[in-house]
Amino acid sequence: MRTAIIGAGLVGRAWAISFARAGHEVRLWDRDPAALSAALAFADGVLPALAAQGLLRGSEPSAVRALMSPHQDLAEALSGVGHAQESAPERVDLKRALFSELDRSAPPSATLASSTSALLPSSFQEHLQGRARCLVCHPINPPYLVPAIEVVPSPWTSPETVERAAGFMRGCGQNPLTMKREIDGFIMNRLQAALLEECFRLVADGYASAEDVDIGVRDGLALRWSFMGPFETIDLNAPGGVRDYAERYQAMCAGLSAQMDRRVDWSGPVMDAIEADRAGRLPRGDLAERQVWRDRRLMALLAHKRAAAAAIGD
Amino acid sequence: MRTAIIGAGLVGRAWAISFARAGHEVRLWDRDPAALSAALAFADGVLPALAAQGLLRGSEPSAVRALMSPHQDLAEALSGVGHAQESAPERVDLKRALFSELDRSAPPSATLASSTSALLPSSFQEHLQGRARCLVCHPINPPYLVPAIEVVPSPWTSPETVERAAGFMRGCGQNPLTMKREIDGFIMNRLQAALLEECFRLVADGYASAEDVDIGVRDGLALRWSFMGPFETIDLNAPGGVRDYAERYQAMCAGLSAQMDRRVDWSGPVMDAIEADRAGRLPRGDLAERQVWRDRRLMALLAHKRAAAAAIGD
Repeated sequence: MRTAIIGAGLVGRAWAISFARAGHEVRLWDRDPAALSAALAFADGVLPALAAQGLLRGSEPSAVRALMSPHQDLAEALSGVGHAQESAPERVDLKRALFSELDRSAPPSATLASSTSALLPSSFQEHLQGRARCLVCHPINPPYLVPAIEVVPSPWTSPETVERAAGFMRGCGQNPLTMKREIDGFIMNRLQAALLEECFRLVADGYASAEDVDIGVRDGLALRWSFMGPFETIDLNAPGGVRDYAERYQAMCAGLSAQMDRRVDWSGPVMDAIEADRAGRLPRGDLAERQVWRDRRLMALLAHKRAAAAAIGD
Repeated sequence: MRTAIIGAGLVGRAWAISFARAGHEVRLWDRDPAALSAALAFADGVLPALAAQGLLRGSEPSAVRALMSPHQDLAEALSGVGHAQESAPERVDLKRALFSELDRSAPPSATLASSTSALLPSSFQEHLQGRARCLVCHPINPPYLVPAIEVVPSPWTSPETVERAAGFMRGCGQNPLTMKREIDGFIMNRLQAALLEECFRLVADGYASAEDVDIGVRDGLALRWSFMGPFETIDLNAPGGVRDYAERYQAMCAGLSAQMDRRVDWSGPVMDAIEADRAGRLPRGDLAERQVWRDRRLMALLAHKRAAAAAIGD
């Protein structure tokens, strides 16, 4: 299928890798030619690393790279596409205008998806004649390393569009979750916010350090979450499954959550302690280098998950 | 070092494996001889599986197993121990009485640790003459597969006791997090409760299915959390680190958490939907078999994390 990436920044350039890896033609469009060059140079760097981890479906990096082309003309980029993925800055006026252009110029059969995390699809898709074929497909960046994609319909998105977008994402090796209706923060940012609020409270109230909280998640809770998710985890944590778990532990959880009814200012005094903790473990000048480490660990984790699913079951 | 396991049920028998794997002598005590037999039979089953995954530090299963002995006499079990780990049922009267016995019978230099997740150490350790050497070391079961241990002092626990318990846990291959003071749910159950409350709300309010929530965590959020934790994750998610992240995203998170100011009844109508979803993926008769699968995946994940830390860095 031919696809278009609308906006070739940090998010768009990562989508391009995911789409091309699946064998799709990828037309990258950006107003800024430097962004297009940077996106293609980025792919040149990432594709061999993915191949080395077995995350390129057996394709040669050069063959994947050859599917990508840069475009500054929007109509040209959209010509004949089946899926267009918009990844412009998070401004509602900009997205409204851009989606008007997309809806005008893309083939009537094309799915028009936004990568937004901050805006509801209804806030910039309502006015479109083709709003039934528009929705949000929100990645955790970069999607070529993080399978989950949030597929979020506006009230006007057709069920066929949702199914087509989810199917396209599955074909790209993503694992789409399909929301039934839109809500601020979708699923992932809401869950992350819920967890982070309690992380900041615990440090602000002097119960633990940021590192101690990180230990509890990375060497504790998130191990099972990383291959089961929270519902399957509790389903297996009581003899009678999830209903039994709720009966045994709901009162305890309700009591704990009743103590979480206030928030602390993340940028207040607690930030001095958190930043000092982090800086002691990672000098601030090494953040970019550590991001490279993170992506290598993510690639290795994905390779492990695939191997474990094949050997042990999923 | 000689150690004692006080209460050989689900938690105690798992601690025995962690302690013996580190080369410690383990005296298992239980009032119920059947529990002692079951604990040793359990070890006979688990140790070869750990060895196969390289999680036995190169020891032979039989050598680890030989370090364990069953005891029905408490004074005998505690004779000469450096660390005693209580894993009795979660009843405060029972733990108060048991700790009185432990404090009377264990060598003065021994650390007395409880595995409780539901009780604060102050609620059953205040009355003890040796309360300075008492604390909580709370595992996520089983500790031989989940490194994180919550080390929780009561107001009377000495700093030396905290340091000694944490050092002992490190020696057992655990990764202890040290709380500065006690709070209901410690760190891990609080964070899990915060996340679960929003999971149940999202399903109850019709935004997503249980499986879609699980996808968002297992193929999204928890990938990075499983090797970095939440604070390092956000430290790497803004160009200027964690302070920059707070400045960029605090307003969004505050807005989301303001929408989370009510809870839904987990055992109410939402449970029908969640249980139906889970049962469709895992027939209720297969829960025990799936727990075996979970532990095999956990072992493989741990082996992966060690290999990745060695190859890529930690």
